[in-house]
Parts: sequence; structure tokens; C-alpha cells
Amino acid sequence: MKLSELGELGLIQRLIEQGFLAKSGPGLVVGVGDDAAVLAIGDGDYTLVTTDMLTERMDYLPGWITPYELGWKSVAVNISDIAAMAGFPTWTFASIGLKPDTEIEYVDELYRGMSECARRFGSEIAGGDTNGVKDDDTFSITQMGQVERSLLMLRSGAKLGDRILVTGSLGDSRGGLELLLKYGPDARRISPHLTASHVMPMPRVPEARVAAETGFVHAMMDLSDGLGADLPKLCKASGVGAVIHADRLPISDELRRIADMLGMSAINLAAGGGEDFELLMAVDPSGADAVIQAVEDSTDTSVTDIGEITQGPVEMLLPDGTRAPITLGWEHFA
Amino acid sequence: MKLSELGELGLIQRLIEQGFLAKSGPGLVVGVGDDAAVLAIGDGDYTLVTTDMLTERMDYLPGWITPYELGWKSVAVNISDIAAMAGFPTWTFASIGLKPDTEIEYVDELYRGMSECARRFGSEIAGGDTNGVKDDDTFSITQMGQVERSLLMLRSGAKLGDRILVTGSLGDSRGGLELLLKYGPDARRISPHLTASHVMPMPRVPEARVAAETGFVHAMMDLSDGLGADLPKLCKASGVGAVIHADRLPISDELRRIADMLGMSAINLAAGGGEDFELLMAVDPSGADAVIQAVEDSTDTSVTDIGEITQGPVEMLLPDGTRAPITLGWEHFA
Repeated sequence: MKLSELGELGLIQRLIEQGFLAKSGPGLVVGVGDDAAVLAIGDGDYTLVTTDMLTERMDYLPGWITPYELGWKSVAVNISDIAAMAGFPTWTFASIGLKPDTEIEYVDELYRGMSECARRFGSEIAGGDTNGVKDDDTFSITQMGQVERSLLMLRSGAKLGDRILVTGSLGDSRGGLELLLKYGPDARRISPHLTASHVMPMPRVPEARVAAETGFVHAMMDLSDGLGADLPKLCKASGVGAVIHADRLPISDELRRIADMLGMSAINLAAGGGEDFELLMAVDPSGADAVIQAVEDSTDTSVTDIGEITQGPVEMLLPDGTRAPITLGWEHFA
Repeated sequence: MKLSELGELGLIQRLIEQGFLAKSGPGLVVGVGDDAAVLAIGDGDYTLVTTDMLTERMDYLPGWITPYELGWKSVAVNISDIAAMAGFPTWTFASIGLKPDTEIEYVDELYRGMSECARRFGSEIAGGDTNGVKDDDTFSITQMGQVERSLLMLRSGAKLGDRILVTGSLGDSRGGLELLLKYGPDARRISPHLTASHVMPMPRVPEARVAAETGFVHAMMDLSDGLGADLPKLCKASGVGAVIHADRLPISDELRRIADMLGMSAINLAAGGGEDFELLMAVDPSGADAVIQAVEDSTDTSVTDIGEITQGPVEMLLPDGTRAPITLGWEHFA
């Protein structure tokens, strides 16, 4: 069997079953399977570690994204995993593979983007590696963070009846990607907002911490692969199901405008689009309003109640009253 | 200017000067510039973090190395950086980029190699990422470790008059590489020992800890780029120079045999060859014998005194009595 047939989730499951990857152990509170690993080093805060790789042509095309934005994004997607555990970023390690004929000014801009993203969220680049590549530039970032033991948020923990909340709006990044795929660099002019959402995502670090501090959040993760792919992961980790109300998905006016222009469904873009890096939370129903209020009061980020945790399956209630698998939106783009 | 003209050391210097990389700071005992970053998390042992990338065609050719060996090597080169600080490995994070049509059995073998290398030295794979690539497979490993504060070894700290010691033998890995370059897979038959040194290096974790525990070691690093490239780094970090006696370099009989066969100088292979992953130490002259004895008593690894720390420059005393820049050996292969 080929890797493409097994898929990433199938591969991870296979490697865990063979005993190659650790799910937990002495000092390892959470290993493979959540947004970041959780280590107990000393008696204080937990230490968080996450690592994510971006590869030219698979994850981006260099003509669409400036080196500054690429540096920013490569760090931001990792910091988002620290945010997903309600942690704060501490140290960034950057292993970068670059073609030997890369202009040094391009490299400066990459590192300026990485460094400014790290610092914006309280981290610093403390190490890394530079390597030559033949064809495709590669960015492998490892991000460390810390979280108070009482604030740690996992994917598991969602309970029957919990409200499902998301920060910000969904699908903007995917809308930006669709524009870039169709119009190339001109997409920037057509929708600066959607393309910026795609090339310079903003991890939800303060939002996650404020939400966790309310004490009402039972489970949390970040939306990196899209709601349709990520909500089932949270539900599986928690042993529950969910119903999402399609008409409650937070969709920006700009995404509606561009979806119309592209002849696409804004709901599908929002439910199936990846790289939003918004937070997905399962919240005690008695505290949902308090979480929304707390996050909106202390940040500029809106929070929307999009559905509830059920006994399963994971599905979406469409505007016409029918129910569909939540992955439907995603499959449309496959 | 292009990256190839600036070089890796020039790039790192440039990025530090621009303030993008942290050399130290609150909680960051040592940042960019040593074998691993040293973090003070809590009051106990220091936490060590290192990251190293291997890329297909730049760092290996798939026909020369089995997936098991490749997995082993990708972790071993990182564990060697933990050993270089006298640390013990704790957690391994593996970000792997693979072609989608890779056979799953190949992936199993990669992870078996990574996992077995990690466990051999007390670590576990606790997280990572898998990614698709178009052309070249990419391995980006982040290795964490711990070291008692009193045992931490840095590149800086070498003192005038210190003896320079190395573990094991030098140049075997380079000899293996030369054989692979010339004979391809047949090289395995010609010299199982040298090719194994190249494809399955053995990090010197216990050796480093035993040496550090003697209290006589002033500076330490691992030989990843070869003595000719690495000794100047240790000397620069310590503000000293060095003289290496070419006729004292530990060269295996097998390397001498193969060097003759290839028409190459065994001394040049030993002084200029990379990927030995042996330890390079600057040791108080009063304790050099004790360090050699301690390491040889508690491991199967020999330790050799190859020269002394001086006021500079960094040079090699050749068998004919002349002195040459230590980088000479390396330049022969450039």
C-alpha cells in the first residue's frame, strides 16, 4: 500500500500500533495525537512542544507569498498549536532547507518574518539548522510553549450537551487560496483581506488563554485542516458526536462576495476550508455566554456558537433542514 | 549575494547581527551557536534542544542506505548534539516529508529505525508531523535532552595548555562515503565497517557523560562536520588556538586499507572527513589520563590525545615536521 492510500491519520495510527510513537509515559502527559506534546519537566508549568513542516509546491507557491509572509506563516501555524492547548509560546527552533542559489536578501526576509511572528507572541528563535536542498525549499519549525497545569486544554474532554464555539470567521483562508489558484498574484488586489488570511494567519494565543481561564472550556483545538476535518478529531478524542448548524457558521461578508464571484458555496468554503487557525471549543452550556463575553471583551476577536456536542454522529444541519456528514464540505474540494 | 557564497556560518552570523536569532536571554542559557540550545525550565536539570535536517540527494541517496538506517541516522545525528553537551536524550520529535507514492513498508522501516535509535539512548518519539513532498524526502528531527547543571559542556571553556582528546577513530564515515560514491551499493561488500560507520553512526552519549563527570573537561562538541571544520569552531568559541599532531590521529586499519585502495590520504580523510559523530574535548592537562581511563573503563570506546590548545592559530603538525592549516584536509575535498 502507498502512503497516499493510507493517509496521514492512518499512518499515525499504524505507527502507534507498532509501538514506534509514544502516546504517553513517565514525564509525557500527552504524546502523539493532540496539537502539541505535553511534557512535565520539573514541578511547575507543563512544557508544550509542536512541530510542523511546510514544503514549497506542496504547501505554497513562491510567487504567491512574500518571503516575509512565508517566514511568518511557518512560525504562526506552530504557535497556533501552542494556542490550542491554552499555552503561551516560549522558544522557536527553525530548520530551513534552501536552494544554494537563493539570494541572501530573500533569506533575510524569511527570518525577519519568522522572528517577528515569534516575538509578536512572546517567543524567540533560539536555535535551528540550515540545509541545502535541490528543488523545494522546506520549513520545519519546532515551537515550545508553557501552560499552567490547571489551564491545559486537550482535544479530549468534550461532554454531551456542550456548546461548540469558534473564534473569528471560517473559510477566509480557503477563499484566499481559491483566489490565488485562479488569479495568481492578482488575487491580492481582488481581495486583500482573504489573501492576507491565507498568507499571514494570526494564531489565537490570547483568545485561548482568556477562554481557558473562565473554567468552562472542556476541550479545545485549532482549526488547521478545516472544521470538516478537525471537528471529527475532537469528537473522536472525546468519544462524542456533534451537530453543526450551517447557517450559524461565521462567514465574513468578504467571503460571501468572493464565493459568489467564484461560483462557490460560502458554507462549503467555511466548513471545508483549511488553515483558518481559529479555535474550536467544546464549552459547558452554562458557561458559553461567559466564554464569548470574556474573549470578546479582552480581544478584538468574535466568538460564535455553531452547534452542540451530541452522542453522534458528527454532522451538519443544512439550511434546508436536512443533515449531511460534516466532511461533505471538504469532499467537494477533493 | 547568494546563500552559497555566504555559507552557513556566515548566514548564522548575519542573522544574529540582525537580531533575528537569540544567543541568550532570560531562561535561555545558550541559544544559537552551540550544539544544542540550553533552556532553564524550573530549578532542576537544564533542558537541551537541537534540530537537524536531512534531505534526499543533498545528504543521502536512497539506493545507498536502507530506510531503517536512514531513520536511525536522522535521529542519531541529533542525539549526538545532546551527547556533545554531556546530556541524556529524553524526547524525539520527527517531522518527515515523504513522496505520496512511498510504499508503507518503507515508512514502517524508517520509523522503526528512528524509534530504535531513540530508545537505544533512552529517548522516545513523542510527536512530529508528516508531510507530502514532490521530489526529495526530508527528515527534520528535533531532539530534547536533559543535563545536570554541573555537567553541562559547552564549546567555550577550552584553556591554554589543555589536551585535545577525541573518542573512537576519525574518517571511517568519510571513507565509507567515498566508497559509496565510487562503487554504489557494492561498497557494502568492500568494507562493511566503513559503510556502516557512514549509514549508522553511534552517538557517544555514555562516553560524554563519563568524561564530564571526571570534572576535567573544559569544552566539548561532537564532530559532525569533521575535525578540520569543527575544531576551529571550538577554538573560536573559547578564544584559543590549537595544534593537532597528524601522526596521532586515531585512524582505523580498515580506513588505511581503503584509503590505499582509493589512492587517498588516510590523514586527510581523518582530518577533513565529516559525520564521524565522535566527541572532541579540551581537557585539563592534569586530568587527560583520567578522562581517557574513565571512558575506556566504562565503555568500549577508545580515547586519543591528538594535540593541545595553544594561543593560535589552529593548525596541524604534519609527519614531515611542517605545519599546515587544519582546514587543509577539508579543502582537499572541496
